[in-house]
Amino acid sequence: MTPTTTRPGGRSARVGAAVHQAVLDLLAEGGAVTIPQVAARAGVNPTSVYRRWGCVRDLLTDTALARFGTTAAVPDTGSLRGDLHAWATALVAEAARPEELALLRAAVAAGPADVGAPEGFASAGTACLAGRSEQAEAIVAAALARGEDAPSTTRVLDHLVAPVYLRALFGLPAPSVDVLVELLVERLVVPPAALRAAPGDLD
Amino acid sequence: MTPTTTRPGGRSARVGAAVHQAVLDLLAEGGAVTIPQVAARAGVNPTSVYRRWGCVRDLLTDTALARFGTTAAVPDTGSLRGDLHAWATALVAEAARPEELALLRAAVAAGPADVGAPEGFASAGTACLAGRSEQAEAIVAAALARGEDAPSTTRVLDHLVAPVYLRALFGLPAPSVDVLVELLVERLVVPPAALRAAPGDLD
Repeated sequence: MTPTTTRPGGRSARVGAAVHQAVLDLLAEGGAVTIPQVAARAGVNPTSVYRRWGCVRDLLTDTALARFGTTAAVPDTGSLRGDLHAWATALVAEAARPEELALLRAAVAAGPADVGAPEGFASAGTACLAGRSEQAEAIVAAALARGEDAPSTTRVLDHLVAPVYLRALFGLPAPSVDVLVELLVERLVVPPAALRAAPGDLD
Repeated sequence: MTPTTTRPGGRSARVGAAVHQAVLDLLAEGGAVTIPQVAARAGVNPTSVYRRWGCVRDLLTDTALARFGTTAAVPDTGSLRGDLHAWATALVAEAARPEELALLRAAVAAGPADVGAPEGFASAGTACLAGRSEQAEAIVAAALARGEDAPSTTRVLDHLVAPVYLRALFGLPAPSVDVLVELLVERLVVPPAALRAAPGDLD
């Protein structure tokens, strides 16, 4: 990628944004995503899309990086519980939006990177989680800097992101956002024994 | 479905098993799954497949119910920790096998049941989790019957099944099965505070 391709507001950035949006639109409509269709929807030349992204799988990965790396800002409420609560609420809302849910489904369907891909090469799946992982790390780091006790980043991914995504991807009937977020956050910050007798459990 | 279709060892049961296996084979090979291809692979008439399953989505759902409802027997080790450990180990192994992983990916890609489907109609996604949910419920019920303290079934799904599936579906680099299972099970049965200082955390 040459320096000009990342210049904000440049033609290359505009093409990138249009192509990402075309991918999201096509996915949300439930149709097949092919490079000619993406190019037609974005109003760009198919050759440009082939040259820049190569194949549909790499285009999905790039779209996932662009979308999931930037949509959820890290909250700063002054406490771990408050930060996790705000972040999880945004996460649940995002995973319920047709475009984002379709992108998550497509990334899962695309599977792992090809055998022989360079070390550290992102698949569409890992691209979906890269931004989440960075955000969780920032929230945990802020809590530790304030002197709070905090779970590891991995624990936040395993016990907050994973349940939200499992419910969205497998189409489980979800409780209200408030109930779901409250329970998942409390389970990360409060010992399980203290929760067992609590009313309002999910089952 | 007439009574004869469920007679063990009957022709209909043999056709069902052959068709399910054909779906799994085609998915694991990474190709598209169509009813003519499934019929050819299973050695049955495409008309029979159309008549019994109707469409690829319903065939996926039925395959998921058949595969994920039966492969993992509920362990009986005499303790909640032992049962969860054995069950989670089988779950991690299963989610790593090409056929099962491909079926999970296809179920996620298929999305929710059509709008207007009958109340309680299973999608391929909910079919994947139905057996897991029943098994978790049996493990929890056995623990409570022994007088043990136990998490809810929902908590087992959220905090044991969800992390295992998230890692498998999004292609995260997984730690060894033993380490992963140990940590996920301990987090369900031990208060987080007791774990924080423990060595061998995942990050």
